[in-house]
Amino acid sequence: MVQHMKWWGWGEEGIAFDHTDKPALGPFVHERIGLDLDAPPAGVPLVADLPIPPPMATPELRAALGRAVGAEHVHDDALDRVTHTYGKSLRDLVRIRRGELGRLPDLVVYPGDESQVDDVVRSALAADAVIIPFGGGTNISGSLEAPRHETRTVVSVDLGRMDRLLELDEEAGLARVEAGALGPRIEAQLGERGWTLGHFPDSFTHSSLGGWIATRSSGMQSDRYGDIADITRAVRVVTPTGTLATRPVPATSTGPSVREMVLGSEGRLGVITEATVVVHRLPAERRILAYMFPDWDAGLAALREVAVGDAAPSVTRLSDANETAFSMATRRAGSFFSALASWLLRAYLRRIKGYDPDRLCLAFVGYEGSAPHVRAQRRLVERSTKAHGGVGLGAGPGTLYDQKKFDTPYIRDFLLDRGGLADVSETAAPWSRLRGVYDGVVEAAEKAFATIGVRGWVMCHLSHSYRTGACLCVTFAFRRAGGHDPVHQYDVVKTAIQQAFIDHGGTLSHHHAVGREQARWLADDISPTGLTLLRTLFDGLDPGHNLNPGQITGDP
Amino acid sequence: MVQHMKWWGWGEEGIAFDHTDKPALGPFVHERIGLDLDAPPAGVPLVADLPIPPPMATPELRAALGRAVGAEHVHDDALDRVTHTYGKSLRDLVRIRRGELGRLPDLVVYPGDESQVDDVVRSALAADAVIIPFGGGTNISGSLEAPRHETRTVVSVDLGRMDRLLELDEEAGLARVEAGALGPRIEAQLGERGWTLGHFPDSFTHSSLGGWIATRSSGMQSDRYGDIADITRAVRVVTPTGTLATRPVPATSTGPSVREMVLGSEGRLGVITEATVVVHRLPAERRILAYMFPDWDAGLAALREVAVGDAAPSVTRLSDANETAFSMATRRAGSFFSALASWLLRAYLRRIKGYDPDRLCLAFVGYEGSAPHVRAQRRLVERSTKAHGGVGLGAGPGTLYDQKKFDTPYIRDFLLDRGGLADVSETAAPWSRLRGVYDGVVEAAEKAFATIGVRGWVMCHLSHSYRTGACLCVTFAFRRAGGHDPVHQYDVVKTAIQQAFIDHGGTLSHHHAVGREQARWLADDISPTGLTLLRTLFDGLDPGHNLNPGQITGDP
Repeated sequence: MVQHMKWWGWGEEGIAFDHTDKPALGPFVHERIGLDLDAPPAGVPLVADLPIPPPMATPELRAALGRAVGAEHVHDDALDRVTHTYGKSLRDLVRIRRGELGRLPDLVVYPGDESQVDDVVRSALAADAVIIPFGGGTNISGSLEAPRHETRTVVSVDLGRMDRLLELDEEAGLARVEAGALGPRIEAQLGERGWTLGHFPDSFTHSSLGGWIATRSSGMQSDRYGDIADITRAVRVVTPTGTLATRPVPATSTGPSVREMVLGSEGRLGVITEATVVVHRLPAERRILAYMFPDWDAGLAALREVAVGDAAPSVTRLSDANETAFSMATRRAGSFFSALASWLLRAYLRRIKGYDPDRLCLAFVGYEGSAPHVRAQRRLVERSTKAHGGVGLGAGPGTLYDQKKFDTPYIRDFLLDRGGLADVSETAAPWSRLRGVYDGVVEAAEKAFATIGVRGWVMCHLSHSYRTGACLCVTFAFRRAGGHDPVHQYDVVKTAIQQAFIDHGGTLSHHHAVGREQARWLADDISPTGLTLLRTLFDGLDPGHNLNPGQITGDP
Repeated sequence: MVQHMKWWGWGEEGIAFDHTDKPALGPFVHERIGLDLDAPPAGVPLVADLPIPPPMATPELRAALGRAVGAEHVHDDALDRVTHTYGKSLRDLVRIRRGELGRLPDLVVYPGDESQVDDVVRSALAADAVIIPFGGGTNISGSLEAPRHETRTVVSVDLGRMDRLLELDEEAGLARVEAGALGPRIEAQLGERGWTLGHFPDSFTHSSLGGWIATRSSGMQSDRYGDIADITRAVRVVTPTGTLATRPVPATSTGPSVREMVLGSEGRLGVITEATVVVHRLPAERRILAYMFPDWDAGLAALREVAVGDAAPSVTRLSDANETAFSMATRRAGSFFSALASWLLRAYLRRIKGYDPDRLCLAFVGYEGSAPHVRAQRRLVERSTKAHGGVGLGAGPGTLYDQKKFDTPYIRDFLLDRGGLADVSETAAPWSRLRGVYDGVVEAAEKAFATIGVRGWVMCHLSHSYRTGACLCVTFAFRRAGGHDPVHQYDVVKTAIQQAFIDHGGTLSHHHAVGREQARWLADDISPTGLTLLRTLFDGLDPGHNLNPGQITGDP
């Protein structure tokens, strides 16, 4: 009843990335990682071919869950179970395509409201079952994965039916929204009344409000709208000891924030059923402008100056030289970045400005609000971009970026179909450490590529700015080498990058949460005592480890 | 060795409020609450007159603490113990003046660095002693008070010696500061290098960084600089299981935020030793301008419009009609608000604008930054103030407000000396509920005054604005009635106001924390399950309840 993504990849069936209208991409990819985009892609796998064990659940539990949500909302078919077993990391995609399904959920239940969620949680706990809340299934941190050797019944609680805007308080700018609502559904319900949430993570089209909260998500326009931690003013969560309900107050000093305990909790405290979020009137104007900087340092210096200054842009994004080159390679024939325009631009920057074409860094800055506000912000920002050698490229590339901003995950599937392994990792660090983190990551990735004997590619962009620092998103890619386990190869590269984040003063994750994937670095990031605090909270509330066990703290 | 406040009142000895140059105040106070300011004040009490029991501590514990911090930094004299037993609520002042000292700490220790704090905590825990961290001693929530019947040794850990700026990262705008530093000391160390923290709570002159964090404090310029929860990017805390140390990253998705668990923890997780805080270059310009609105609703509407719009002022403050009348009554002879100027202004507003003089509401809006930024913000703000009938009064009253902003607590002492009981309570609520909260509070206070048979006065100001709501600070005052226990009278009024906050959708405290004083409303505010989460965390980390026991959760 709820439309889910392809179980073996990103997005809905029938939608895929296409390279035939991007003449520069094939040669670029071939040159950088030796991958042939014109090779025949892997075929679509069939559920029927998967080794699916029968679901394990007592008739009593099935009956109780049926009473809770209606028998027609308790599923145990293969497709439902496979769709709910993993997120969408490269590790997940590789494993699921080759039939490594992990510990599949036994049952998938679809509650229709909070009281049904409460009944589901009570029933599952009474039967000593494991409960894993499911939002949109887009995480790349292993956050949905049950322990491999779990012997208890595993129940996936899919909030997909709970997708309504419950209340819009126009005076306060607050909306109560059910946690299962996906991005587009939220924006549609708000948009028809003239409002927006303004939260646009890469996963926007398929991720849910509850998932954003459970993983401390951040969207592309966070510079203006805030991270989900800022946006979420109140939560309701069904926990083992009752329903947690906080008030949507703008600030409070009522002890350690229980609202903040829910943010990033990845199901370990219970099932988030709804949130009260900050909403905004749809802006009168919205522009994303492009700027080209001579190099990474110049771009960073400009965006830092913007972040500590008086300007308030909605988007600040800066690609390093590698990612800039990749962007140019994905230009469509006839687009703004067509071969001719691109050649002219590079010629101008090289000849007139004296910039090294191989070091150019492309930036986007977004502006939103009334026309005078947009003008004023642009004036302020461009004082900084100019001071650091940034050349304005106008609205063309920004419009293109804006149109394609949710397409990136499709490219990963496209590469994977052709033997290319790619994924992302991201961190945040103070401005003073950003260059060190970046250099450390590039060095670590290159070493990792050498270790596994591949020609690899690493590229990076600054994606969110704060007064004191920024987020860096790292993309890595390489061609799968025959005779080697791609999951092992992925591990070597991913581990090297994560370790570099930690070694150079970054956090282990800026907006993808901890899950199973990053749990081993948690004590390095928040100190062993920080880990003890989290364990104290989780184990105290859920002594039987029924709630998404092992996530975040990495306990077995 | 550390200069403390008067144990029986606010501030340092020799500084007091004086009404002789404020001709309108005496008649005003007499008319409103029947108090005679010219009556002879109560004399200053003497420590020697207090009933102080001998300190209770084993020689072993004394020796261990002496080894930890040096014997000269372990105190058990009467003055030190009395100074560390309470905060500065009206309840505290009344009790201490009449010799009700509560459960005095037995020992006061003054560690000099984090490793000494660690030794103190280990030694105290080994002896099963109670540990109460002491910052500036300014709280009004009972946050320093040991349980009345505590039979274990009570150790007050005074961080007063730990007051250094440890590191200033100018590129990231981050400063590492020891937790014991009081406001003026922080600003002095930052100021000489051209920086400011920008955190100015009413208690600024005597409160500490660690105290601000432990109580989730908020300063007068929070609209620009944020609440302490925003300002604090990383913490170090000595806990029973080791030292918690988080990274000063601008944002992170590493599970529930352990940094946020420390904010508002009031000593229940351990002793905060240092924090990394966001700092700003001293602004080129700083202005606070006054505006007079026809009434409370008009002022609220204007400030709401400013908060949801594009302007970014540093201060937004709006007094209700009662507080506006009080401000006028405290005008100094010859000041801007002199009798003549005040008369002319009121005449203009009444005759020309048609405003009712009894409903006028005074607002302050602050602007900081470069001169063009200040100009631009002012233009934006004044579009909203004008649209709601606000009349600009220029910089005079704002300058006066700015000079006197830390004097309010002295007025309370002045009244108390003369039989007047006054204190504050504050809340935050969404814009849509603010008027309901306000009306509910005024009604509840009036009823409470009637119950205890006094002529009371209640006044209010909006003190901090957010996009979705604001903080309301309520001041109440009445004349102590002979034959009645003032603490009981205080309780009746304070309870009525707090209950009104909760009944009308506010939070129990915006920036004064929970302590013992507000603990009974905590479950109403964050739900019983929220309280369970906090208990789970505290009891799990500190099963023996050695760390400031009973605070926040209200356990005996």
